[in-house]
Amino acid sequence: MKSEKKQETGKQRGSQTVYFKNPPVIIGAASVAGKKEGEGPLGAFFDQIEEDPMCGKETWEEAESALLGKAASLAISNAGLTAKDIRFLVGGDLLGQLIATSFGVENLEIPMLGVYGACSTMGESMAVGSMLVEGGFADKVLAITSSHFAGAEKQFRFPLDYGAQRPLAATWTVTGSGAVVISSKGMTKEERDAQGEGGFAQVRIKGVTIGKITDFGIKDSMNMGACMAPAAYDTIKANLKDLGVEPSYYDKIVTGDLGLVGKDILIDLLRNDGYDISENYMDCGIEIFDPDVQDTHAGGSGCGCSAITLAGYILRKMHKRVWNRILFVPTGALLSTVSFNEGQTVPGIAHAVILENDI
Amino acid sequence: MKSEKKQETGKQRGSQTVYFKNPPVIIGAASVAGKKEGEGPLGAFFDQIEEDPMCGKETWEEAESALLGKAASLAISNAGLTAKDIRFLVGGDLLGQLIATSFGVENLEIPMLGVYGACSTMGESMAVGSMLVEGGFADKVLAITSSHFAGAEKQFRFPLDYGAQRPLAATWTVTGSGAVVISSKGMTKEERDAQGEGGFAQVRIKGVTIGKITDFGIKDSMNMGACMAPAAYDTIKANLKDLGVEPSYYDKIVTGDLGLVGKDILIDLLRNDGYDISENYMDCGIEIFDPDVQDTHAGGSGCGCSAITLAGYILRKMHKRVWNRILFVPTGALLSTVSFNEGQTVPGIAHAVILENDI
Repeated sequence: MKSEKKQETGKQRGSQTVYFKNPPVIIGAASVAGKKEGEGPLGAFFDQIEEDPMCGKETWEEAESALLGKAASLAISNAGLTAKDIRFLVGGDLLGQLIATSFGVENLEIPMLGVYGACSTMGESMAVGSMLVEGGFADKVLAITSSHFAGAEKQFRFPLDYGAQRPLAATWTVTGSGAVVISSKGMTKEERDAQGEGGFAQVRIKGVTIGKITDFGIKDSMNMGACMAPAAYDTIKANLKDLGVEPSYYDKIVTGDLGLVGKDILIDLLRNDGYDISENYMDCGIEIFDPDVQDTHAGGSGCGCSAITLAGYILRKMHKRVWNRILFVPTGALLSTVSFNEGQTVPGIAHAVILENDI
Repeated sequence: MKSEKKQETGKQRGSQTVYFKNPPVIIGAASVAGKKEGEGPLGAFFDQIEEDPMCGKETWEEAESALLGKAASLAISNAGLTAKDIRFLVGGDLLGQLIATSFGVENLEIPMLGVYGACSTMGESMAVGSMLVEGGFADKVLAITSSHFAGAEKQFRFPLDYGAQRPLAATWTVTGSGAVVISSKGMTKEERDAQGEGGFAQVRIKGVTIGKITDFGIKDSMNMGACMAPAAYDTIKANLKDLGVEPSYYDKIVTGDLGLVGKDILIDLLRNDGYDISENYMDCGIEIFDPDVQDTHAGGSGCGCSAITLAGYILRKMHKRVWNRILFVPTGALLSTVSFNEGQTVPGIAHAVILENDI
């Protein structure tokens, strides 16, 4: 493992990974999930289940904004803060022009940086957010994203009313929003010791690996796993190489939403390079639904998939020290109906966030 | 004027402005403009004029990607670098899922952070890029954006073939891409002195002001100036307040694309708060076209408008010390056809970048 200080000028060339000298802390998180997600295997872990897919609104898009607004407010209050304490909000979503985020957070009046990395957005917003905190530009940043099954289908494929049939390689866009509050300061060693043995572990963001656009020439919008697996491969490989570690360095390597098809491709690609992740690999899209009961085919997807799995499930497992070191790698397929219908490929991108418990 | 050191923890509450301790330097820039832009008042300032609106491609979107790819490569080579020297690329565009950027920079293989702030994107990418550089996470960052008249009309309003009539409040989306390379190091004092009197000034990014989503309830997609003026007002006011300065502190306060309608609104809004910017205000959208000859109505707009005006015109004026301190405020209207057609408002956002010549 390389030196733990921030990479210095001149040593950066070629490296995609930033390793923090003063790793920021996740001091609050929130997961607001849809009804179907609440009925899935991770249902018990989510902070809130929204039974009404419209969230009391008139359109799918407004519903997603409402979900996202709830997750934002909940994450902030879970961190014991108010919106005024958050210096910057970094977030985005799948909808064109990030309307779920814009309308969802408008009333919080937090200076906002909109980001887009398709379903890798939670990784990107956490990467940017943690760099802003560690760089000394903000005490506290809110990183957030969301997705909504109906809004995503309408935008990217077919409106639900068409009753289009979904192939088995297709994934099911998760309805939900996840958010984390990233802070320059967490609890001190003394405060943590005072919690005693039953206390929660404190999760830090130790570093981030920024992904490149990866394009293996795949053109199937119904097989996003295959589009994204090369990007996950590229980013995970870069992370392992930059840190000089083996996959077993992590308790789990967690991708966002490769699903069952993408999973096999990723494991194979990394195996070709001598990295075996089969023992400690997990995909949020595979965990979030039960395909036998929920008819979700290859798994869950969407920005919300990795976001609520992180905020609801992974962080809780880390707090209880079931896992102490996670490589969280949300994966995005840069699918656009315009470029897709013009015959272009669907490139992918993935950003990795190194999460680690304070000892 | 407040202390010049980076704002410390605890003093950040409520402040939207980050003022850098070690201001990064713009070491390279590029502006690639369309034919119409090349025929406008600023035509002589652009690095390249692309005579073919299709850039030799088959679709408007591919054309925009080509423009953006050219600007990226040119900015990097103007800085005397190759793509491998750039640690991160921060950029985005108006097209859904940022396809102009994704496909435009794919072959450069630079780790990428996609951002979206509508036409404020150049401000956002420079703000994020300069924080990443000043925070020590990257030696060199490329900040980039683009827009294309035909692609934007097709996406946001009507395909050109429909021959829709444009109201006088409408602006004309600029075809062009602008990029800057932001570096932790520029020339030393000795190197600059060696240039003698005829040497170019060195432009630094002294700080940034991150905007909030601002929504005055305007719903007219053909009057983007009115949608964005409140956001420009909010961000400029925050900047002046955070720095404790009067508008005359800047040689010019430059908005992105408010156009003739938005200009008047902005000046009035700030005047109500006791700030008179009428003497030193400039809008890239007003400068870039000659409405009498070019039939552009209220002015130019689009991410590319402020980007090529900055990279082509403003930086050249600064290099020649015509201007020494600029507040560059690209302005974005968060217009989505989906939310718009569902009866929602068009909120705005604006991010400000403080540009200053080394003495």
